[in-house]
Amino acid sequence: MKIMEFRHILEKKNLDAAVLYNSEFPRINPNMVYFSGYTGLGMLVIPKNKQPFLMAPEMEFQKAKKSMVKKVYSMQKKRFFESVSDIIRKNGIKAKNIAIDRNNFTLNSFKYFKKSFRKSKFRDVSLDCTKLREIKTNKEIEYLKTSCNCADKIIQKTIKNFRDFRTESEAAAFLEYETKKFGLELSFNPIVASGSNGSMPHHEPKNEKIKSGLCVIDFGVKYNGYCSDITRTICVGKPKKEEISMYNLLLKIQNGTINQIKENKKCSELYDFVNKNLGKYKKYFTHGLGHGVGIEIHEMPNLTLNSKDKIQNNMVFTIEPGVYFPKKYGIRIEDTVLFKNKPIVLTKTSKDLLII
Amino acid sequence: MKIMEFRHILEKKNLDAAVLYNSEFPRINPNMVYFSGYTGLGMLVIPKNKQPFLMAPEMEFQKAKKSMVKKVYSMQKKRFFESVSDIIRKNGIKAKNIAIDRNNFTLNSFKYFKKSFRKSKFRDVSLDCTKLREIKTNKEIEYLKTSCNCADKIIQKTIKNFRDFRTESEAAAFLEYETKKFGLELSFNPIVASGSNGSMPHHEPKNEKIKSGLCVIDFGVKYNGYCSDITRTICVGKPKKEEISMYNLLLKIQNGTINQIKENKKCSELYDFVNKNLGKYKKYFTHGLGHGVGIEIHEMPNLTLNSKDKIQNNMVFTIEPGVYFPKKYGIRIEDTVLFKNKPIVLTKTSKDLLII
Repeated sequence: MKIMEFRHILEKKNLDAAVLYNSEFPRINPNMVYFSGYTGLGMLVIPKNKQPFLMAPEMEFQKAKKSMVKKVYSMQKKRFFESVSDIIRKNGIKAKNIAIDRNNFTLNSFKYFKKSFRKSKFRDVSLDCTKLREIKTNKEIEYLKTSCNCADKIIQKTIKNFRDFRTESEAAAFLEYETKKFGLELSFNPIVASGSNGSMPHHEPKNEKIKSGLCVIDFGVKYNGYCSDITRTICVGKPKKEEISMYNLLLKIQNGTINQIKENKKCSELYDFVNKNLGKYKKYFTHGLGHGVGIEIHEMPNLTLNSKDKIQNNMVFTIEPGVYFPKKYGIRIEDTVLFKNKPIVLTKTSKDLLII
Repeated sequence: MKIMEFRHILEKKNLDAAVLYNSEFPRINPNMVYFSGYTGLGMLVIPKNKQPFLMAPEMEFQKAKKSMVKKVYSMQKKRFFESVSDIIRKNGIKAKNIAIDRNNFTLNSFKYFKKSFRKSKFRDVSLDCTKLREIKTNKEIEYLKTSCNCADKIIQKTIKNFRDFRTESEAAAFLEYETKKFGLELSFNPIVASGSNGSMPHHEPKNEKIKSGLCVIDFGVKYNGYCSDITRTICVGKPKKEEISMYNLLLKIQNGTINQIKENKKCSELYDFVNKNLGKYKKYFTHGLGHGVGIEIHEMPNLTLNSKDKIQNNMVFTIEPGVYFPKKYGIRIEDTVLFKNKPIVLTKTSKDLLII
């Protein structure tokens, strides 16, 4: 995606080429994936005035050939960083000023990398990459819509079958099975957090009986590499009065927040809106309001208290207020939302409190 | 694990404390997990002469409290790195010489981190950590045995049901479902590579009909955070003569390699043994012979051509020779092996060529 725009940035910053690195599995560099579609070990070179090329070890060569990059070199894993510099020179690229992604380069990898580029200067373009990725192309929006649509179908099927699951793990396994069956990936490990487990926003499903009461289900898939993200809170057995009123308050706030979204709206103002409406409960809202969604499950923009980001056309992000009462219960309601002149909710599963 | 040994290393190297960092999900720092059991965002401080403590953002606080570390601080995500330095000082720790893990610190994170430690010197202890992890404790060996045992059961059930799967994705989904159902994690995304797909060692299962012929299934689970790794190649329909003889050659080599393992054996010699026995086919063996297995699916020792590692007591590693004929087929046979006075194969699923 947006290779031309990126090359334009290199040109403007007087950088000869960008060298992006996918290090050991499973630490994938999302910026490299964005420009190349390649998820294996390797390096991507994007010269400012030439076509990009990819370098991959022999065992990943066939996979690399199937990426969006036309020119692929096979290289020895042992001489990896040396070969990069050789190939760059053979391609007649002056590598005096090199753009790197400092968010996806470890101290040690960079130490070895720069040994092969002793005369070069390096400049960080990580922010340029994430900024490019923040505004989605039409193609990306199509992928994200399909991703949300798949997540909707799978979470609905899971909720429908919920009575069949004995443990949180079984419910999580079902979400995953339905995902993988269709050749999709998870965008993160599903959260199924029943009863008091729901008070931990990042609870890992346990192989223990599902507790009665509220149950938070947080789930998303990857379609063509693009993430979706949805959370629904359902109730196993009869909810307490307090739980119902808390749920309805949060739902009203979640819908209200989505209605507040307009172009150039500050993300921090959306967060403020939630806090104001939560009133005395705001101390139980312990995480951000949302995050951009794309190749990464968490990307720009940030919808937090201190965010400087503003809503722009073609951004895709989550709106996910939550309240967590330690050792009691938790509620979170989350949608993935596209902003295109107006907010368009991409995850369409019903938000009425479902009692099963 | 091995906190005392690690503190002893700090003492010897005249380092005041180690500061290890788990950055954004899903980029977990395995060394931090090893010492703390904590997998969320946060920092772990291990002073040379005091008990370790953990710092986690508010939303991960409850999870952090459940880790192996007794002392946990909650901190603001925004002032993360500043707070680390505050808390270290409050604990009366002289932070003049700080140990860091340069393999798990990105250039940008470190840039911000060191701003709060202007007068400190930093020293890399990544190799010390991986070296500690290379030799397993008895507790770790128990976890790894159970992990392999679970992987065996699940791969056997999958192979038994293989005729029911229409696509590679369905088979992969089944492996995953059985894993998650019991509250286990995958140690990596399973590989199910049928027919010509088998010629790509890291093929991702496709939502396409399983091709007849050889099919590579590479799978592993995590039990209590510890990985297992097993590959079996089965045959869907009648195998060709060439495929049978190639399979039998590889199996003989795999078993032969395991029999070669003894204390102080050079890993590179084991690799040589495979190459020698593959003869004219050695050019189709395009990856390493194996890798250590523990908290990470790939850790020390390295069983490659150029490895300097030697087999030691209480190491756990894979033996996985493979041959890959481009656009035709692939075969890989892999076991997880413990060395304890002799090689003990932990994955016990039959290696006879199964025709289904």
